[in-house]
Amino acid sequence: MKNCIVAQSGGPTSVINASVIGVFEENLKQNLYENVYCGLNGIEGILDNSIINLSEMSNEEIKNFKYTPSSGLGSCRYKLESFNDCRKDYLKLFEIFSKLDIDTFFYIGGNDSMDTVNMLSKYARKINSKIKFIGIPKTIDNDLCMTDHTPGFGSAAKLIATTVLETYLDSSVYLNNGIFILETMGRNAGWLTAAAALARNEYNDAPDLIYLPEVVFDKERFLRDIHEVFERKNCVVIAVSEGIKDANGNFLDDNSKYAKKDAFGHVLHSGTGKMLESLVFKEFQCKVRSIELNVLQRCAMHIASKTDLDESFVIGQKAIDTALANKSGHVMGFKRISNNPYQVDYISSDVRKIANLEQKIPTEWINKDGNNITQELYDYLFPLIQGEVNVNYQNGIPAYYSCNHLNK
Amino acid sequence: MKNCIVAQSGGPTSVINASVIGVFEENLKQNLYENVYCGLNGIEGILDNSIINLSEMSNEEIKNFKYTPSSGLGSCRYKLESFNDCRKDYLKLFEIFSKLDIDTFFYIGGNDSMDTVNMLSKYARKINSKIKFIGIPKTIDNDLCMTDHTPGFGSAAKLIATTVLETYLDSSVYLNNGIFILETMGRNAGWLTAAAALARNEYNDAPDLIYLPEVVFDKERFLRDIHEVFERKNCVVIAVSEGIKDANGNFLDDNSKYAKKDAFGHVLHSGTGKMLESLVFKEFQCKVRSIELNVLQRCAMHIASKTDLDESFVIGQKAIDTALANKSGHVMGFKRISNNPYQVDYISSDVRKIANLEQKIPTEWINKDGNNITQELYDYLFPLIQGEVNVNYQNGIPAYYSCNHLNK
Repeated sequence: MKNCIVAQSGGPTSVINASVIGVFEENLKQNLYENVYCGLNGIEGILDNSIINLSEMSNEEIKNFKYTPSSGLGSCRYKLESFNDCRKDYLKLFEIFSKLDIDTFFYIGGNDSMDTVNMLSKYARKINSKIKFIGIPKTIDNDLCMTDHTPGFGSAAKLIATTVLETYLDSSVYLNNGIFILETMGRNAGWLTAAAALARNEYNDAPDLIYLPEVVFDKERFLRDIHEVFERKNCVVIAVSEGIKDANGNFLDDNSKYAKKDAFGHVLHSGTGKMLESLVFKEFQCKVRSIELNVLQRCAMHIASKTDLDESFVIGQKAIDTALANKSGHVMGFKRISNNPYQVDYISSDVRKIANLEQKIPTEWINKDGNNITQELYDYLFPLIQGEVNVNYQNGIPAYYSCNHLNK
Repeated sequence: MKNCIVAQSGGPTSVINASVIGVFEENLKQNLYENVYCGLNGIEGILDNSIINLSEMSNEEIKNFKYTPSSGLGSCRYKLESFNDCRKDYLKLFEIFSKLDIDTFFYIGGNDSMDTVNMLSKYARKINSKIKFIGIPKTIDNDLCMTDHTPGFGSAAKLIATTVLETYLDSSVYLNNGIFILETMGRNAGWLTAAAALARNEYNDAPDLIYLPEVVFDKERFLRDIHEVFERKNCVVIAVSEGIKDANGNFLDDNSKYAKKDAFGHVLHSGTGKMLESLVFKEFQCKVRSIELNVLQRCAMHIASKTDLDESFVIGQKAIDTALANKSGHVMGFKRISNNPYQVDYISSDVRKIANLEQKIPTEWINKDGNNITQELYDYLFPLIQGEVNVNYQNGIPAYYSCNHLNK
């Protein structure tokens, strides 16, 4: 009987480890592989022979691992070049796979990682290797194609919605209230920012304004919008994406001294909220606050969505079926059957249809004024944050599993 | 039978409403007052006759109100001048109290609000009024004198500790990790920053470095500290107070364009973490991130400390006993009996010993290098974050009580 190997890549999410455990537990049922190996720190670690055997973990460890946020197997942002540019990576990887008698490689990641799945499966075909490469999606950004949504997004969305409700309660206590700006992640796609709308309920209509990267940011229009709400409500709550751009396509924080790039050349934004805070303060001379939720969005397991955690687990299980169907170069995904009752099918697609591509919010899901979302988008988002996860606590803090000894 | 009035003032906390309900429910038992009135928006609202009768709330509303973060009665930052400077405020307030047949005024607030309690009780003595003025402390800053700690602090501390643990897991996933900076509130006292140490457990020793406002901030020393940890661990987690100052007593963000002042003339800080991020990036040229937890620290009820919530409730109940003992110009507080088992007594003190004063971290609770806390401070903090609150959820977000209709 052959073996499989699982690894994680790219930015973490709160529920990314559930997909690892999904693969592991489904294999216990179906007995497809003798060993479930894990590559530490993605392909970067595998190239360095950092590999463990998940079958050696205790039941207790497996259970706690599922409820632990962030990439427990470690991660990487290693860009696999094409075969012609980096022959030695391919030869080394397949030599390691062969030595471990690997039948399937499950790679949990975003669109950059799916590019790796694509290139490795292409190479396998080229050399007539039988090794299968299957992608399992994860990203809080929800910007992958060929899937209704992505594991990790729902939990980030739940944190954002909860934070908007709590900060609305905080920022509306005075007779003279102010303007509150919440900056979310989401480089080019506004899904996380849109999720702020899930804070609305029978007494709260904050966020009052939502600015998405899909809409050109117009400073004058922005200030007019705030004027209108402030006069009416004496308190304005704004959700804004880190990635909003002006009419020339420039990010608002392009000139920020903090501007940096990641290994894939993507600009790392930081400071859109602070820049808007300064702009708004100059205009209104009233109390203005901004919060940048930053990495909390991808690791706040203590407020994870149960729907998201369960789906992240099941999509790992379903990846076993995809391997069983002998598919390679495929990525798992969700197909939504209905919003209410919420129902999804688990599907797989050719990874070339998703690698390096981004799924943005469709124009028809943004209101005409470009400062809010439509009911249809709200209905799409709503099911993804439902349900709470019972995290265990020890000594007043969550009892997460330590993966440190793995990563040494 | 006479009545009492309760109001809230200053910055909110996650558990401030529990003290209101503590007063209310204890009065149901002891039947001391016929009506429990509430002033909306503190004395600013009372002066405007914005007063409701809590006895008219349903049981369901009372229960939900207790679990709702932020000042449900609204708040104010109204500075009551001395009688000679603002005669009309005093006359108006006492006229309203007299009309409502008020026996006791319970004011829930921080050290600024306790100044109000002090001045009103002094004025009552002067005019031979029998009205009693009793302060109930609240502040996430934990900087009040004459009390072991303050209601609201434990919940903020629990959020901070949980966030440090989760962001440590997030920031340690790569082979080449970076430097992570968490900025907490705490103007001149470092209690909130110190609470980051509660994230430490058997596998995590982050935060690696803690910078408190009680210690002069030395840039060179700071960079050397980071160098040392980075070489050893390849990942540095730093907790820093918004209020750190250099040897000349200047705040790090004094020149920030966001610098603003509140009604009491206190500088509102914003940007210490970002400034350090920039400094560290220049020095190390590696991945650096900073998060400013901002108002989340005072409204994240979804991760509140049960110990804190319970104590905030009981201190409201005990305020009734203080009124029964005919004390005026007193503020409630905790006296710690022991850390383990954790036990406190409820006390009251002359409000003049707390008004406008700040309780900082004692020097002996800070390590010699000025970049960490001692075991004794850890042991002091530990009991305050114990226990979790079962918040109800509806539609995926916490089912907090709407106080909006009250505040109209």
